[in-house]
Amino acid sequence: VIGVMGPGEGAVADACRLARRLGALIAREGWAVLCGGVAAGVMEAVCQGAREQGGLTIGVLPGAEGSEASAALDVAIRTGMGSGRNNINVLSSDVVVACGMSAGTASEVALAIKARRPVILLGADERAAAFFRDLGGDRVRVTADPEDAVRAARDFLKSRRPADP
Amino acid sequence: VIGVMGPGEGAVADACRLARRLGALIAREGWAVLCGGVAAGVMEAVCQGAREQGGLTIGVLPGAEGSEASAALDVAIRTGMGSGRNNINVLSSDVVVACGMSAGTASEVALAIKARRPVILLGADERAAAFFRDLGGDRVRVTADPEDAVRAARDFLKSRRPADP
Amino acid sequence: VIGVMGPGEGAVADACRLARRLGALIAREGWAVLCGGVAAGVMEAVCQGAREQGGLTIGVLPGAEGSEASAALDVAIRTGMGSGRNNINVLSSDVVVACGMSAGTASEVALAIKARRPVILLGADERAAAFFRDLGGDRVRVTADPEDAVRAARDFLKSRRPADP
Amino acid sequence: VIGVMGPGEGAVADACRLARRLGALIAREGWAVLCGGVAAGVMEAVCQGAREQGGLTIGVLPGAEGSEASAALDVAIRTGMGSGRNNINVLSSDVVVACGMSAGTASEVALAIKARRPVILLGADERAAAFFRDLGGDRVRVTADPEDAVRAARDFLKSRRPADP
Repeated sequence: VIGVMGPGEGAVADACRLARRLGALIAREGWAVLCGGVAAGVMEAVCQGAREQGGLTIGVLPGAEGSEASAALDVAIRTGMGSGRNNINVLSSDVVVACGMSAGTASEVALAIKARRPVILLGADERAAAFFRDLGGDRVRVTADPEDAVRAARDFLKSRRPADP
Repeated sequence: VIGVMGPGEGAVADACRLARRLGALIAREGWAVLCGGVAAGVMEAVCQGAREQGGLTIGVLPGAEGSEASAALDVAIRTGMGSGRNNINVLSSDVVVACGMSAGTASEVALAIKARRPVILLGADERAAAFFRDLGGDRVRVTADPEDAVRAARDFLKSRRPADP
Repeated sequence: VIGVMGPGEGAVADACRLARRLGALIAREGWAVLCGGVAAGVMEAVCQGAREQGGLTIGVLPGAEGSEASAALDVAIRTGMGSGRNNINVLSSDVVVACGMSAGTASEVALAIKARRPVILLGADERAAAFFRDLGGDRVRVTADPEDAVRAARDFLKSRRPADP
Repeated sequence: VIGVMGPGEGAVADACRLARRLGALIAREGWAVLCGGVAAGVMEAVCQGAREQGGLTIGVLPGAEGSEASAALDVAIRTGMGSGRNNINVLSSDVVVACGMSAGTASEVALAIKARRPVILLGADERAAAFFRDLGGDRVRVTADPEDAVRAARDFLKSRRPADP
């Protein structure tokens, strides 16, 4: 399960374009995509990208009733916890990719580092990259395009294998 | 998505037998099963039953790392919230079936009634049935076998349709 | 810290009267009152009762901004989790008293039993009492008036002492 | 209620010294201190500082049983949610002060910006300050000493007044 975190309403077009391509690539690897599930911005784009390639899409929603959900979700988890669900997003991901940046996304990157999940920053500016590398060391990688992000995710997943029972 | 709630470690053999059969029937309807995800008792049994019929199984786990997860889960949500995740289970379900009874299961039935989710009590004793009918009125049904439970779930889902946009 | 759980909007006058008296008695013991914090029903009444006797009142609120809070709270915890906060209420209490009954209150009693907190049912009908005694055994006591509830709480707190480090 | 967020185990001596002084100053203003409640690092220091000046200290704990709690807490909220409780910390604060930096602290600053709580960074390095100013604009202030932080908090609280009913 690859968690893709990114802005909803406030997402810039570039982040959405990257997210859609990323979703497609993740699906082609046979991995599931997990995100915040809202029908906006990066969350919507990554689900659509994955869905088009037949991938499984999981959304961990802020609301209790799911009216905010993307139509491209296969599994919708309704938490009723608002941003409190951000920690569930990262715990449920084997690798976390941040695509774009916002306060919510930054909280997810920080929680991922805290929970010792590997993090890939896709298209982050130098300031964000430097800040999170300070916090997370070599569990944080910075990539410029979705292909590199998927390669980095593959590396993280491979390196984890031997440690698992 | 049909949520099946029931005891883990403390489950009696009868509840597990009902849960396994219920999981199989839910999968045959083409519905997904959502449960607490732990590799024990009713949660394990319902996932195995659904899995054998090719159904999708979703577990909302109490732990942060997922070591307690059933091997029959397709999607594992790691909440790190202990019993705090019980409310997520019921919010994420369109119908809640309680199979067997325990303190955790009782909390999920009560939270389901609070969140206005329809509830089906499968194999509940008269005392539990009476208590929850007092609380939930006609959104609570009591059935003795899994076939009846699936029929009741179908009724609830059908009656909901016209109200949906 | 004594957690007092009970209905908000739907509370009957009798439960509110008991809650107000209970709040006053808890404050006189020098204990803090913890509740769901909403300005309605049992939650409002127990805070007012405690406040009048100079007791500390703590509310664990469902909302994120606190607009639903009772004016009689000294400490307001804003969770933004809706009924997901019910588990926090019981975990944060050393003894849980349920005053009146509703779906939300029933979930808190069940979660308290699950978390091995002692429970006192104040003014519960025979059906509810029987159901929860089945689940919780001798960690569940049933009392008819607030004076007895406080006595039962004192017993529970005393019996806990030797087990603590 | 002033929320003071900062590292636990990994806190540097300098951050703890600042936190202790900050706690004392907050208490002298008559405000309550809210923090993560753990008996380590900044959380312990700010509670001790506040306690010495007779201030009220509130801890929102990660664990379910409270064994990790600082002895200087007046009110201990046991969430059983691990880092999931970070969002509760910021929602329950009227102003959030970050003292020192770590992954957990960064998540709280980001969640505070998301929830539109004013944020004061005390003793942050230039990199962290720049990153969070990008995200939060003028709701984020950077100060070098506790006296300035309290002054900034007073400003934020004052500017909020007229907007409240």
